[in-house]
Amino acid sequence: MLFLVRMDVNIPSDLPAAEAAEIKAVEKEYSQGLQRDGRWPHIWRVVGEYSNYSIFEVASNDELHDVLSGLPLFPYMDIQVTPLAKHPSDIN
Amino acid sequence: MLFLVRMDVNIPSDLPAAEAAEIKAVEKEYSQGLQRDGRWPHIWRVVGEYSNYSIFEVASNDELHDVLSGLPLFPYMDIQVTPLAKHPSDIN
Amino acid sequence: MLFLVRMDVNIPSDLPAAEAAEIKAVEKEYSQGLQRDGRWPHIWRVVGEYSNYSIFEVASNDELHDVLSGLPLFPYMDIQVTPLAKHPSDIN
Amino acid sequence: MLFLVRMDVNIPSDLPAAEAAEIKAVEKEYSQGLQRDGRWPHIWRVVGEYSNYSIFEVASNDELHDVLSGLPLFPYMDIQVTPLAKHPSDIN
Amino acid sequence: MLFLVRMDVNIPSDLPAAEAAEIKAVEKEYSQGLQRDGRWPHIWRVVGEYSNYSIFEVASNDELHDVLSGLPLFPYMDIQVTPLAKHPSDIN
Amino acid sequence: MLFLVRMDVNIPSDLPAAEAAEIKAVEKEYSQGLQRDGRWPHIWRVVGEYSNYSIFEVASNDELHDVLSGLPLFPYMDIQVTPLAKHPSDIN
Amino acid sequence: MLFLVRMDVNIPSDLPAAEAAEIKAVEKEYSQGLQRDGRWPHIWRVVGEYSNYSIFEVASNDELHDVLSGLPLFPYMDIQVTPLAKHPSDIN
Amino acid sequence: MLFLVRMDVNIPSDLPAAEAAEIKAVEKEYSQGLQRDGRWPHIWRVVGEYSNYSIFEVASNDELHDVLSGLPLFPYMDIQVTPLAKHPSDIN
Amino acid sequence: MLFLVRMDVNIPSDLPAAEAAEIKAVEKEYSQGLQRDGRWPHIWRVVGEYSNYSIFEVASNDELHDVLSGLPLFPYMDIQVTPLAKHPSDIN
Amino acid sequence: MLFLVRMDVNIPSDLPAAEAAEIKAVEKEYSQGLQRDGRWPHIWRVVGEYSNYSIFEVASNDELHDVLSGLPLFPYMDIQVTPLAKHPSDIN
Repeated sequence: MLFLVRMDVNIPSDLPAAEAAEIKAVEKEYSQGLQRDGRWPHIWRVVGEYSNYSIFEVASNDELHDVLSGLPLFPYMDIQVTPLAKHPSDIN
Repeated sequence: MLFLVRMDVNIPSDLPAAEAAEIKAVEKEYSQGLQRDGRWPHIWRVVGEYSNYSIFEVASNDELHDVLSGLPLFPYMDIQVTPLAKHPSDIN
Repeated sequence: MLFLVRMDVNIPSDLPAAEAAEIKAVEKEYSQGLQRDGRWPHIWRVVGEYSNYSIFEVASNDELHDVLSGLPLFPYMDIQVTPLAKHPSDIN
Repeated sequence: MLFLVRMDVNIPSDLPAAEAAEIKAVEKEYSQGLQRDGRWPHIWRVVGEYSNYSIFEVASNDELHDVLSGLPLFPYMDIQVTPLAKHPSDIN
Repeated sequence: MLFLVRMDVNIPSDLPAAEAAEIKAVEKEYSQGLQRDGRWPHIWRVVGEYSNYSIFEVASNDELHDVLSGLPLFPYMDIQVTPLAKHPSDIN
Repeated sequence: MLFLVRMDVNIPSDLPAAEAAEIKAVEKEYSQGLQRDGRWPHIWRVVGEYSNYSIFEVASNDELHDVLSGLPLFPYMDIQVTPLAKHPSDIN
Repeated sequence: MLFLVRMDVNIPSDLPAAEAAEIKAVEKEYSQGLQRDGRWPHIWRVVGEYSNYSIFEVASNDELHDVLSGLPLFPYMDIQVTPLAKHPSDIN
Repeated sequence: MLFLVRMDVNIPSDLPAAEAAEIKAVEKEYSQGLQRDGRWPHIWRVVGEYSNYSIFEVASNDELHDVLSGLPLFPYMDIQVTPLAKHPSDIN
Repeated sequence: MLFLVRMDVNIPSDLPAAEAAEIKAVEKEYSQGLQRDGRWPHIWRVVGEYSNYSIFEVASNDELHDVLSGLPLFPYMDIQVTPLAKHPSDIN
Repeated sequence: MLFLVRMDVNIPSDLPAAEAAEIKAVEKEYSQGLQRDGRWPHIWRVVGEYSNYSIFEVASNDELHDVLSGLPLFPYMDIQVTPLAKHPSDIN
């Protein structure tokens, strides 16, 4: 099952720089692990914003929530989830 | 270059059914032609809505506008365009 | 899998009354069929509005879209879909 | 009487972790007590967000406000309350 | 139980004047009946708008929905319902 | 003259508890004084929120502003004011 | 007492031109009468929109509503009313 | 003086095609006349929408309103006007 | 040229009281100077809010920006600017 | 390729003045460098706000994101990007 997810990151200005850098590094690893196992097939940067649009492929809502709430940056994110279905014109 | 595009379709209730069906058929062909030539790599149905999210791969803004404004259903659509860039965590 | 769905119904004032009544009757049958087979476990009226909140239990996004887009009143509805997951405090 | 309630939790980043954990534990107990006595029949996690949708069954508006304003996390919540009525298609 | 209700009236411009006048007359009677029996204790005009704010006193959500959906102008109204509780500073 | 006023209270989490309690006590006294002299005939709690809807009866806009801006909690409030007029269906 | 009022005019495209012109002429007369008697001291055009911002000076909310709801273009207007008070820095 | 202006065009679906084409032709001439005399130095198409962003250079607010309200498509437009000033970093 | 300007003031709760009082005093002087020289002909308090609506009469956009950005409270303000033109019904 | 970009700057009140001034100076240099090399052909101040509208001319979305995310004030900005195409009426 596919979901479109928008993530807007708002790191508080008073979070120590080192701590922020550490979280971002762990976030990158976490994301790339999910990309490699196929659950996070697409991640794109929204031009001009500290945000991304991503496509997730998971077996259930619960799995998606576990993946998203497990994001190291989750406490600093506004997330919107849009469930997707197959489009009748889709040639794939 | 990649763009995320959301299309919400609002066909007026007083458009004759035959005319609407005809436009939808032409729309499907138009879309599948662009999918085959690689400019419309993804099209997903938004669950519960007469809407889709799509990914377009084009060479310029102008090309994207020509493609979108050429949609047979364009007069009945609300369209939002979000330019995308490569995400630093993207493993592809 | 559970989804919360809000449906706002806007029947155009120029739709003949008989036609509207016919669609509503078919809608009721459609809904009650899905309630009986367990895919539509809850449907509540929003006080003061021609709207409802419903809970759907389906196996996939695609199944949910088929169910919703198959609603006889679908052309006259604004629909919002919120995917739900198990809450850590839920005792059930 | 039934109410649909959405709760969005925003715990300030400068609240000490131990204090936050303590409040969440008390919150869980408080919620499960109400679930057991039937006033909080449903609680679902909104996928991707630190939010829930819940159904409350109470005798009056005042009782609902007492229950909600008594939530340990109440000071850190944005809450929306939607009164529900029986839907004419509801087979239950 | 008390509810604050806002009603915005939007009568389509193509509704024949006589029909509109007839509905408004029936609406007035309907409203005044409920005012006399105590369920509609307050109705105020919003300055500059074809809208009102009202206070309803009813025994349940279902009763409120029956009252509101029974309004002759209901098909032409946008209605917002806010459940009210006793305020701790209220001297009454 | 009547006004409907909505007050949403947002007390900063870093305001010392004692200071907050003191302001709330003074607020209650202030409100009850105005209720007794008839300028604040109604105050209702919005279910689930640290907010109220109130009806004020004053002689002028300026008097209303003095009353509202004199609220001890004024610095922590978002306030919306809606001027009300007599409704043609009002039986009082 | 002063009020700031915004009026957005939306004349339906299917209103016969002659009828629209007639209403606008009566509207102009109505407005200028109120300007001469001092109740409508200011009227400004919002640049680029079929809208105006106006200042009204009236004795009560009810008088303002009578004036506004008496506007010939009232049925085609969205109106927002903001009550104004004397500003402490105002040198007049 | 410079203004940024956004124009969203919504031509009603029941406007005869010939009439619409005629208005668009007159609109193009009108626009190009203003571009040639320097008052409309920039006009850009918003990708994917029947909208444009334009820069106007005029001597006053009144002149801008005359120019905009004189647009043949004005009755079918939603227009937003943003006054611009010289930016301290502007090297021109 | 006339502009309608709305100013919403949000002074952070952690700004020392003395400093806030000092800025407000300078703000009052600044405003009254502009009122005396005719560039700030009207300033009204929005009832119930720490906001004002004002009318400015200036020669250009740049002059208006200099005046507004020079406000001592500018860093704590949300400002909306609406350019105004002469209304065809205005008798002045 | 052209893009319209709106930037709203919100510098936290607790950022030391010297540090803020330093960042602004670097921002000005950064902007003027891009203006000189043609990628930032227009920058205008939004009257009354700490915001600007700019036109960027770049070869791709990715280049635009690099330019914008490289802004020294980027962490304190809300940015909206609108892709632009050639308008059919544009005489240039």
